[in-house]
Amino acid sequence: MATLSGRTFGSDNHAGVHPAVLAALGAANVGDAVAYGADDTSKAAVTRLCAAAGAREGYLVFNGTGANVLALSLLVRPYEAVICAESSHLNVDECGAPERFLGCKLLAVPTPDGKLTPELVATRLTGRGDEHRAQPRVLQIAQATELGTCYSLAELGQLRDFGREHGLLIYLDGARIANAAAHLGCSLGDIAACTDVLSFGGTKNGALGVEAVLVMADGLDAGGLYHRKQVMQLASKMRFLAAQIDALLDEDRWLANAGAANARASQLAAALAVVPDVRVAYPVQANGVFTDMSRELASRLLPDWPAQVWSEAPDGRRVVLRWMTAFDTAAEDVAEVAAAIGAAARTTAEATALQSPSFT
Amino acid sequence: MATLSGRTFGSDNHAGVHPAVLAALGAANVGDAVAYGADDTSKAAVTRLCAAAGAREGYLVFNGTGANVLALSLLVRPYEAVICAESSHLNVDECGAPERFLGCKLLAVPTPDGKLTPELVATRLTGRGDEHRAQPRVLQIAQATELGTCYSLAELGQLRDFGREHGLLIYLDGARIANAAAHLGCSLGDIAACTDVLSFGGTKNGALGVEAVLVMADGLDAGGLYHRKQVMQLASKMRFLAAQIDALLDEDRWLANAGAANARASQLAAALAVVPDVRVAYPVQANGVFTDMSRELASRLLPDWPAQVWSEAPDGRRVVLRWMTAFDTAAEDVAEVAAAIGAAARTTAEATALQSPSFT
Amino acid sequence: MATLSGRTFGSDNHAGVHPAVLAALGAANVGDAVAYGADDTSKAAVTRLCAAAGAREGYLVFNGTGANVLALSLLVRPYEAVICAESSHLNVDECGAPERFLGCKLLAVPTPDGKLTPELVATRLTGRGDEHRAQPRVLQIAQATELGTCYSLAELGQLRDFGREHGLLIYLDGARIANAAAHLGCSLGDIAACTDVLSFGGTKNGALGVEAVLVMADGLDAGGLYHRKQVMQLASKMRFLAAQIDALLDEDRWLANAGAANARASQLAAALAVVPDVRVAYPVQANGVFTDMSRELASRLLPDWPAQVWSEAPDGRRVVLRWMTAFDTAAEDVAEVAAAIGAAARTTAEATALQSPSFT
Amino acid sequence: MATLSGRTFGSDNHAGVHPAVLAALGAANVGDAVAYGADDTSKAAVTRLCAAAGAREGYLVFNGTGANVLALSLLVRPYEAVICAESSHLNVDECGAPERFLGCKLLAVPTPDGKLTPELVATRLTGRGDEHRAQPRVLQIAQATELGTCYSLAELGQLRDFGREHGLLIYLDGARIANAAAHLGCSLGDIAACTDVLSFGGTKNGALGVEAVLVMADGLDAGGLYHRKQVMQLASKMRFLAAQIDALLDEDRWLANAGAANARASQLAAALAVVPDVRVAYPVQANGVFTDMSRELASRLLPDWPAQVWSEAPDGRRVVLRWMTAFDTAAEDVAEVAAAIGAAARTTAEATALQSPSFT
Repeated sequence: MATLSGRTFGSDNHAGVHPAVLAALGAANVGDAVAYGADDTSKAAVTRLCAAAGAREGYLVFNGTGANVLALSLLVRPYEAVICAESSHLNVDECGAPERFLGCKLLAVPTPDGKLTPELVATRLTGRGDEHRAQPRVLQIAQATELGTCYSLAELGQLRDFGREHGLLIYLDGARIANAAAHLGCSLGDIAACTDVLSFGGTKNGALGVEAVLVMADGLDAGGLYHRKQVMQLASKMRFLAAQIDALLDEDRWLANAGAANARASQLAAALAVVPDVRVAYPVQANGVFTDMSRELASRLLPDWPAQVWSEAPDGRRVVLRWMTAFDTAAEDVAEVAAAIGAAARTTAEATALQSPSFT
Repeated sequence: MATLSGRTFGSDNHAGVHPAVLAALGAANVGDAVAYGADDTSKAAVTRLCAAAGAREGYLVFNGTGANVLALSLLVRPYEAVICAESSHLNVDECGAPERFLGCKLLAVPTPDGKLTPELVATRLTGRGDEHRAQPRVLQIAQATELGTCYSLAELGQLRDFGREHGLLIYLDGARIANAAAHLGCSLGDIAACTDVLSFGGTKNGALGVEAVLVMADGLDAGGLYHRKQVMQLASKMRFLAAQIDALLDEDRWLANAGAANARASQLAAALAVVPDVRVAYPVQANGVFTDMSRELASRLLPDWPAQVWSEAPDGRRVVLRWMTAFDTAAEDVAEVAAAIGAAARTTAEATALQSPSFT
Repeated sequence: MATLSGRTFGSDNHAGVHPAVLAALGAANVGDAVAYGADDTSKAAVTRLCAAAGAREGYLVFNGTGANVLALSLLVRPYEAVICAESSHLNVDECGAPERFLGCKLLAVPTPDGKLTPELVATRLTGRGDEHRAQPRVLQIAQATELGTCYSLAELGQLRDFGREHGLLIYLDGARIANAAAHLGCSLGDIAACTDVLSFGGTKNGALGVEAVLVMADGLDAGGLYHRKQVMQLASKMRFLAAQIDALLDEDRWLANAGAANARASQLAAALAVVPDVRVAYPVQANGVFTDMSRELASRLLPDWPAQVWSEAPDGRRVVLRWMTAFDTAAEDVAEVAAAIGAAARTTAEATALQSPSFT
Repeated sequence: MATLSGRTFGSDNHAGVHPAVLAALGAANVGDAVAYGADDTSKAAVTRLCAAAGAREGYLVFNGTGANVLALSLLVRPYEAVICAESSHLNVDECGAPERFLGCKLLAVPTPDGKLTPELVATRLTGRGDEHRAQPRVLQIAQATELGTCYSLAELGQLRDFGREHGLLIYLDGARIANAAAHLGCSLGDIAACTDVLSFGGTKNGALGVEAVLVMADGLDAGGLYHRKQVMQLASKMRFLAAQIDALLDEDRWLANAGAANARASQLAAALAVVPDVRVAYPVQANGVFTDMSRELASRLLPDWPAQVWSEAPDGRRVVLRWMTAFDTAAEDVAEVAAAIGAAARTTAEATALQSPSFT
């Protein structure tokens, strides 16, 4: 089930492809082109994206898992470790692909809001120089985080400085970097400047399927092309990945798409502020709203609204649902789902009241 | 440089996307759809492809490297080995991705024409039961082969029987399986029945980028979904991979595309039969023509025609070039390149004659 | 620095080799013997150890890391995960070898005393069937634990039953299994019966260097011999590993050695019970004593006594030191170190009192 | 079966331990010692061995597989490849451990005698800079080779120079480096100077079980200690590995042991020169003799003499057996086996003559 217009809120990758992206695929389909990125279209798109980020080199890949693993391939040796938030996609939702492919250890740190701080990172820096311990080498962050929060540029700068001071390279998972840039009102380069390597996500931003790995630092592993091939992310008809990047960069469409999605999330959060039994669990700084509610309310909603069950309280009585907006979510969609949540909350409250003993 | 119409013959993935595939992408772009293949479009396309092959299950992936590695993930443990042709894409052109990801050893066998035989495979079956040796477990073949040759169904059946007898599972790399089916005049199921796992290639057959791994045997590793995620081949907006598969299966377009490409390769081979100094190196049974020629002739051709330099004789005097046709190669394109080769051959012969001492 | 007799308490592998083990090495050095474990001595020792544990098969290896990784090789595929205590050697002290070699994910659970419980394990069973999540498959425990505690046989049985119920295989790291058996007064088979695979540690129990992997369950990966070779744990002159096992099993020397070490640890704990500012942090059920004390006291002790600094409180004011006893620790050694700790504690208390303001 | 004295000739690791090595183990067994190589005995032994080789750093490990994999860990990234002889232990007898642990590809080259040459290596240098190809980075050689041959110092120098010129690092597998030094009459440093990393084998030279990895070049991966731990080769009671090294270096025992073994192999080869139907297949330059003979003769010998069946001719009529000598092989042992081979050869010849039709 979904809104009248077909909107589900289950994930920002439930959305389709932006019309401009589809049009760009058609426009790129002219004659032959050299494969594997050696064609002019692909080279130009990578150059353009690198220029926007201030990056030294860039690699287009198929998906976010591929981007994460390729990026880390440039940064770690197998005996080194990656410090990341316990809630990170890298730690939770890659089915162990980083461990399988890189052979290295993730050091996951619990966080209150998906964001690492120098203090949190410092707790995992023990054991350096001890041959029995995997050696921390990378500080991995997501911007926006998986919990819909964003680092400020000041916070990113502090992490970068902390990394410099403690020999940690910074990798920023930018699957939703556009949403963060839209929230912060900053450029891609502003965020990128705080990292050593970052990814730039297209798929959740209206593309059919494309991500990029952008290299900021020099002196890293020089085998990026070989790593990309080995991580099975080398597209033969590369021009069709490049065309998607171009379509997102044209007219700052990446920012516009993200800004639209962010606005819809804010609209939803505002609407829910007055709904009883619903608490927005994290600051809404990107395109996700996390609602803490009773299990009864969640059970009433989920059959009709396939929001993701993000977490459950240990006692099972409270549940957090995740609601995501996309580039093409309409204000009417949000109004519809907010109304549905409100109605369900009222029904739940009435049912609970009926079940309670009355003291008259 | 290329033909007047822009055809290069450098690779079948220099071609663009078949219009019906592009149209299918647009048609699939309606509203939201559950991600990662759980949507109706994706499930139906996989079911349809499995039915065509007689397969038990299927997995859509991004590219051929991913298909190869995913397929082998279902078949081998790290201490087991894969017997393959020395000229196989798996051995030569994956940048070691199978070794990196599977941790297993490839046992490469030289072949005269890219095709393995029971006799050739038997040479690599030594050391079974010896803990010092990687244990042969998979027999990997490509159909069509990387040299443009095809196994007959009888040959495939012999390999399957040999495999059954010797405890070898069969994996067939079908990056160009359509070309083989078109050549043999057989169904997908006819080929698939000789395998335990196979891949079905879309990208070289007019797709934008999609391949499938199809599982025939039962009792294999049951973790296909997890392996696909780990090998970084799980698409979020899966419907757009599925739509490509559908477009290729519609009206047997996969066979028509492959048949057209095969016909153009045969046309080229026929035209070259009368060209001096050019010998077609392997039977032309798919969409590739391999031409053995003098270095002088090759040097004259390559600046204008970026055919792939496939191999060179040890003394450096003879060179084999690879010329590939695609679903959209036109008869006029072939005529144009054949004429160019013929002209270059005549010019080379004249130049050589001038340089030779005359004995009068 | 150390006791008058040279005892350090830094680790149970600071000890040398039991004389009976050395003698056995000499006795085994007669003539030629087939290599790699095919000789009679090696086969007999493995058979004998398997009989003692009730195991189906056994593999001798060089060290504990090798035993852990070989054992897990029989139990997990790369997309599966191992649930373990956060304090486990597997998680902390293998430098990421399990991740590098197995490619799988460890799911580490904080525990109060190094021991997992069904309730703690249950917290990591989320995400089963979700292709984005590494799939929990093994429950790893250490007996004795790294914190010097032991599971009772009842607790082991509960974990085994929980594992059976939830599809988890049990791997028991028995680097100090002898200490646990001595503490519980049980047989090797009693502990082994609660596991699917276990290791039997010799090195910390008076051997020069030998561990064994013992397989209890049937239906596991049958490639143990190949895995052992691949994990670089196949000794050519295997008879000299086997001789060590024999020497430990002779006259139940493994139990006697462990019992002696345990008694010395208990002696130390008892002596420290009356020392101010020293708190024994965990129940002393094997051969380790963990002492929680002020940083001042620890700083006074460490120059002379290289106990391992196990952990530090977040505010840095309290420190836990680990003191290990071995098969050859003497009662006099313990008396000497206990006296030294007592004296340092008194000196520290006096120094602290002097520094405190007096309110008279 | 074996000689009267128990000698088998099956492998040089069928031998036991040199008495001086056993004595050194006993001598090292005094009191406590810090674990993992931080004790004075271990540090001194490594320093001493490094000095003998002119090496920058050294790592003691358990066995040859561990030495090979640790050495390569310092030299390759996963997308790089190792060029080696097809007959190398690395390629044939490690059960794929290099591929599993390093994730990299071996490029195996057929050789006439187990020795690589610049010309042979050059055949595997194609595809550099092509992202589809694993990038050759290491040239691996064994000295002595697995076929009992030795590189001259001039040949080693040529390979080193070729490597320098073509960006290849040299790894020398020295499982039998002592036999090569004894044959060449050179020092350890003479051989080591031609390499970037080498191993020094103790186990086949009279040790119980110890090998060393020695690093000559600077600028390599600095994580040797971590790699050793990850490859499961870090011994806790390291002093007992160090003591073995010391015992071999004392009085140049390593050279004496190897020289004795070499002399016995030469004696055997000389004795076989006059035996009909037996051809020594490779120059005898170390401690192995490879005998090419009819299948009939081999079948007559093998029940009593467990020499290793090294290879068989494709038609099955000729077989190569390997006979290895060790530090403690006696001249009488060799005389006994030579006599047995001679007798069997005569018996076989007579039996064959009887079966042949006579034309009188």
